Amino acid sequence: MADADNPTEMIADIGRRARHAARTLAGLPTAAKAAGLRAAAARLRGAEGDILAANARDMAAGEARGLGAALLDRLRLDPPRVAGMAAGVDAVAGLPDPVGQTIDRVERPNGLRLSRVRVPIGVIGIVYESRPNVTADAGVLCVMAGNAAILRGGSEAVHSNRAIHAALAAGFADAGLPADAVQLVPTTDRAAVGAMLAADGAIDLIIPRGGKSLVARVQAEARVPVLAHLDGINHVYVDASADPDMAARVVVDAKMRRTGICGSMETLLIDRAYPHGRALVAALAAAGCEIRGDAATVSLAGVAAAGPEDWDTEYLDAIASVALVDGVDGAMAHIARHGSHHTDAIVAADAAIAERFLAGVDSAIVLWNASTQFADGGEFGLGAEIGIATGRLHARGPVALEGLTTYKWIGRGTGQVRG
Amino acid sequence: MADADNPTEMIADIGRRARHAARTLAGLPTAAKAAGLRAAAARLRGAEGDILAANARDMAAGEARGLGAALLDRLRLDPPRVAGMAAGVDAVAGLPDPVGQTIDRVERPNGLRLSRVRVPIGVIGIVYESRPNVTADAGVLCVMAGNAAILRGGSEAVHSNRAIHAALAAGFADAGLPADAVQLVPTTDRAAVGAMLAADGAIDLIIPRGGKSLVARVQAEARVPVLAHLDGINHVYVDASADPDMAARVVVDAKMRRTGICGSMETLLIDRAYPHGRALVAALAAAGCEIRGDAATVSLAGVAAAGPEDWDTEYLDAIASVALVDGVDGAMAHIARHGSHHTDAIVAADAAIAERFLAGVDSAIVLWNASTQFADGGEFGLGAEIGIATGRLHARGPVALEGLTTYKWIGRGTGQVRG
Repeated sequence: MADADNPTEMIADIGRRARHAARTLAGLPTAAKAAGLRAAAARLRGAEGDILAANARDMAAGEARGLGAALLDRLRLDPPRVAGMAAGVDAVAGLPDPVGQTIDRVERPNGLRLSRVRVPIGVIGIVYESRPNVTADAGVLCVMAGNAAILRGGSEAVHSNRAIHAALAAGFADAGLPADAVQLVPTTDRAAVGAMLAADGAIDLIIPRGGKSLVARVQAEARVPVLAHLDGINHVYVDASADPDMAARVVVDAKMRRTGICGSMETLLIDRAYPHGRALVAALAAAGCEIRGDAATVSLAGVAAAGPEDWDTEYLDAIASVALVDGVDGAMAHIARHGSHHTDAIVAADAAIAERFLAGVDSAIVLWNASTQFADGGEFGLGAEIGIATGRLHARGPVALEGLTTYKWIGRGTGQVRG
Repeated sequence: MADADNPTEMIADIGRRARHAARTLAGLPTAAKAAGLRAAAARLRGAEGDILAANARDMAAGEARGLGAALLDRLRLDPPRVAGMAAGVDAVAGLPDPVGQTIDRVERPNGLRLSRVRVPIGVIGIVYESRPNVTADAGVLCVMAGNAAILRGGSEAVHSNRAIHAALAAGFADAGLPADAVQLVPTTDRAAVGAMLAADGAIDLIIPRGGKSLVARVQAEARVPVLAHLDGINHVYVDASADPDMAARVVVDAKMRRTGICGSMETLLIDRAYPHGRALVAALAAAGCEIRGDAATVSLAGVAAAGPEDWDTEYLDAIASVALVDGVDGAMAHIARHGSHHTDAIVAADAAIAERFLAGVDSAIVLWNASTQFADGGEFGLGAEIGIATGRLHARGPVALEGLTTYKWIGRGTGQVRG
């Protein structure tokens, strides 16, 4: 049994059970995994009352502890959110299974036939904060890609997470998936996170889902590889060649559609030669955005003076910084200095300029004539996402099933030796 | 200037120059990179005298310090080795360039056209030991994939490395590549390695090339992602259905062709139902291999008793452990317990059994009817290798140019917004 008093032993025990489950999951056909997910979705729907009752306890405790409105909103479940969670699980069950896909193959001159085939990563740890839906979303993405998941949610969502996890586990049992396919760490003690981060060999990959301080702690401490999602200090550059209606539409959407998501624009860069800059800034202000401008834009109506820290700030709010730049080269230089390699966009009619931007900006996602708010696994056709990776290794940008796999080399010979 | 007295500042300075070079390299066409490599190969040939003189200094110092014969052999350069190094650089110049390749593309229902395109990783640190050829091999692989390299070689090869690096740099200059495309850390102080491992943000990836203690130190200390190459505790399983001549040929090659490489077999697993086990063990012994057997094989001629540690030992020598197992399931259970996820092979005529092994053994490379000594980038058609990755993230097995790249998502729209 897991011993919550000794986090290292507890995680080692959970890790052993996860490894065992992972070996089984790795060999399951797509249909068996999909059946397990559909059964879990059905159990989630059936457990709506239990889940909402558990969530009510968490909400009451959160209110008593004085959690902020944004945090309470992330914590809150209601019937549509539970239904959405179940629908999300069903959607993942219908995604193409990456496991077993052949990436490439070659026959060597000596007759050895080599192929690279996708296989699960193994045991994936997810460390997250207040959103209880992550328990279902992340758990089933891991399982559909053939991995066992170890989930460690935040203390404020503990009852909600347990109720959701119980429904998943019941669904997996209904369909014959391993009981330990998704385990929820039974304690919300911070030491359990430390033990997970140190569990090199037991856990193959840690994915933090949460705010900056969580991700920073995970990156600072982890001995296990981390797929991290850092800031989205995203830019939209409006080139002199941009259509003014399109520019206003893209910029307002990029900033204001949802201001609290990582794909939202934080800095607007306007080509000094763009003739409609004043109207563009006015459109953004009219949409309710507070604007902090550089020396060249601060004279415009509704623009306050930006401080040096503004160019490096992820507001996650209805605030944008605005600067004039010297064409696409000026924009790329600004982004290279201040960007976070997440998502950056250009609005331009000139295709050659746009292609220079797409090639030259070193971000996980670069967009031409489209809103940065498309930075999302669903919008990219991945069906779901476990996060948007801002590192450079393994997977970059929206990560869904394929990013939760690795590959092996398979060689089929007829007795070949090196000799 | 780099300040060798302050390793953190020195690596920060080297890292800034590497980042600058990486930005230039990322935008270069294939032909420009290839021309740089060919010029470097020409300079290596032209500098043969300088390189051999520098190597003679290292060899004299190594002998004076009492380095072992194996280490001295790794350190030694001679005209054929210098010619081989230059030929290797030319070969990398001729490899297909992964940068700019489109991995996949999709047009979304809203008309947004998305593609994933390979791009360089950025700045790669290589930490290695006594083989001076790594200076050329690893440096040019990084550059051909569009990355800047920071090389930190061992103190015993310091003069050889400097001479080789000078030739590379001269060749790059001849062809107009950035001077900082490949930098050699000017000190062999161990603190420089620590500074590299801590240089998160300045260095994107660390690749250790060397023995267990080096790799272990890198993995224990690194705050930068690591592409590690750990033990090769490789198995050959000989099934009851195996052709006896093929089995003997593959097993002897897997163990004895070269015993000191990571792809060599360390443990032979023989199906209890295989009728030719005695002859197989005799063939291995006749090839000069010391054999340590389990209870069932220790009675055979020339077999000593294995201790419990033998099953977990990478001998890298003319020694093998041998055990009888109960069919392919017994073999897979043994490998799951003792293997290092590097390279494992089955010899079998029964295709169904072989496919179970290929699917069920969780190693970077799994082979059917072929020697484990094929675990090599050249043999896999990659043209070269920077190592054989035994981790599960990013790249697995032999890593060459593609493994030194990542990707970005490029989206081309017509004014799409999420709305």
